[in-house]
Amino acid sequence: MELFQRTLASISDVDHQAGAAAQARLDSLTKPLGSLGVLEKIGVQLAAIQGKPMPTLGKTVVMTMAGDHGVVEEGVSAYPQEVTPQMVLNFLNQGAAINVLSKHVGAKVVITDVGIAAEAIMHPNLNMCRVRAGTRNMAKEAAMTEEETIAAIEVGIRLVNREIEAGATLVGTGEMGIGNTTPSSAILACFSGGDIVAITGRGTGLDDRGLSLKHRVIKQALDVNQPDPAQPLDVLRKVGGLEIAALTGVILGAAARKTPVVLDGFISTAAGLTAYKLNEKSRQYMIASHLSQEPGHRIMLDLMGLQAMLNLDLRLGEGTGAVLAFNLIEAAVKIMHEMATFAEAGVSNKE
Amino acid sequence: MELFQRTLASISDVDHQAGAAAQARLDSLTKPLGSLGVLEKIGVQLAAIQGKPMPTLGKTVVMTMAGDHGVVEEGVSAYPQEVTPQMVLNFLNQGAAINVLSKHVGAKVVITDVGIAAEAIMHPNLNMCRVRAGTRNMAKEAAMTEEETIAAIEVGIRLVNREIEAGATLVGTGEMGIGNTTPSSAILACFSGGDIVAITGRGTGLDDRGLSLKHRVIKQALDVNQPDPAQPLDVLRKVGGLEIAALTGVILGAAARKTPVVLDGFISTAAGLTAYKLNEKSRQYMIASHLSQEPGHRIMLDLMGLQAMLNLDLRLGEGTGAVLAFNLIEAAVKIMHEMATFAEAGVSNKE
Repeated sequence: MELFQRTLASISDVDHQAGAAAQARLDSLTKPLGSLGVLEKIGVQLAAIQGKPMPTLGKTVVMTMAGDHGVVEEGVSAYPQEVTPQMVLNFLNQGAAINVLSKHVGAKVVITDVGIAAEAIMHPNLNMCRVRAGTRNMAKEAAMTEEETIAAIEVGIRLVNREIEAGATLVGTGEMGIGNTTPSSAILACFSGGDIVAITGRGTGLDDRGLSLKHRVIKQALDVNQPDPAQPLDVLRKVGGLEIAALTGVILGAAARKTPVVLDGFISTAAGLTAYKLNEKSRQYMIASHLSQEPGHRIMLDLMGLQAMLNLDLRLGEGTGAVLAFNLIEAAVKIMHEMATFAEAGVSNKE
Repeated sequence: MELFQRTLASISDVDHQAGAAAQARLDSLTKPLGSLGVLEKIGVQLAAIQGKPMPTLGKTVVMTMAGDHGVVEEGVSAYPQEVTPQMVLNFLNQGAAINVLSKHVGAKVVITDVGIAAEAIMHPNLNMCRVRAGTRNMAKEAAMTEEETIAAIEVGIRLVNREIEAGATLVGTGEMGIGNTTPSSAILACFSGGDIVAITGRGTGLDDRGLSLKHRVIKQALDVNQPDPAQPLDVLRKVGGLEIAALTGVILGAAARKTPVVLDGFISTAAGLTAYKLNEKSRQYMIASHLSQEPGHRIMLDLMGLQAMLNLDLRLGEGTGAVLAFNLIEAAVKIMHEMATFAEAGVSNKE
């Protein structure tokens, strides 16, 4: 509780003066003003976050949090719950998409069990930080207690702090948890007040009947729990999940340490939205990576004024979209350092 | 003429059987079916292009074609024409965005003068293939003769052939030419029959008055020249440009050699659309990279059924969006080679 409150309180505004200096630098480079679009915005954002006109990047890391969901007993996922630990083992054995893509972009993958509902996996590269073996069934009762919720948030804060202390300069979010689009949709429904049908998608591949069931289950979870959108911790506790709470902690922790954090898809962005509701300043440290096929994802990003860079119809999670965006963010930084100015290159500026 | 006709005739369908085998491989990997979205589509497309279920990539290259436009005398660009050779010199001195981004993704940049309207630049890394020192003013007469148009196309074919023979496995398109969104909009207006106002944008930064002028100039060019949309070469000749013709050649040449070609932004895609109209099969070899801020770009991509991967609000050209997409295409190939299957990883498949 103390770490959570302290982290939340220590998130401050970015340095807009450094951001303005970065934009001035970008405007002096040999290209039409603003023509590098989002790459320029990211350069400016990183400068403002780091408090220096020429941002730099070193090590990059993706924090993949795994947890299970009691609500799967309602039949809201196309895959059985045993897939959560199986996929975590696959992560540890380097066989999953997140491993391949992280290796491709030179990022470290940090895998954490914050709430898997199965026998513990013993592996030197797994952070065993299980708060509880899966959440309770939110269609019947609150998914977590307040203590469990804060404990899971603090897992995220502690682990991201450790990575930042070890040199991480860019943090991605990722997750694994069968059924976790259901709590993510419930979180969005609660914060947006929007229509459940419009914001709920097929997850990993529900058919029409499964999708209707998912709508009913989310409505029931909201009816049973009555989460209060004005109290983000109440929302997260009642209709969230352990890995979503841990990612909320990762985002808050990164923001508190003035480190940019890249949101992956729908579930990660549910954590981002929760962090934003807990402290709006955390938004200044967030970068959106891709636009998921889940229909609610765009709504979440719009609520925070974030724009996705990648449009790949991904719906995998794990952090896969986030690490693909790392390459673009690194490109944005190189633009600032390596391009010639109009003066250096002897190029005429706008008439 | 002979090279052009021979290239056009030698473009054949991709190998759909190899594509289906690639999809079967993707479906066996530890992820929900189709959950890697566009990355899966690209894996399948590359397999079909290369005629093998497991595509591979080696060297990558971006072909940046430079040319000037007589129509700039109408005042359709925010920058003076002298910027074309200045920027080409900047490319040769490694100072431009395309240099920084290509280095970032490990791609070679091939710079070609196919029609700059200035004194020749002497530099060992510049391909001097100038067909003519800029096009004629299309608002008054045809931009090029048929001979010039085909000569420029053949520059592109010859140069891309040279790169493919030297080991290039993935080709990007790029361009530099002050004023070249104007012919690109004219090409689109001609092929789509669409409203000039809806498909014409501000290029590198026209104000409202400049944009209105650009609309009038494009309308005048179409009225004066009456290009026939049923004859793509006629369209390209009358309202196109030398670098657009050369890129059309790059695309046709890559397709003829069964090599995937990545379209950059609006101008490159105008070349792509011209190649598609010349031979629809060439479309099977094209990959769209980013969605430009130019409003006509999405219309062009839709006409060919292509989907952009990157949404970065770029409007720079040079090939910058294409090379950023190289990293994603390489990721798609690694997914196919490096991910574990459900059987290998002991992960349960869909219930």
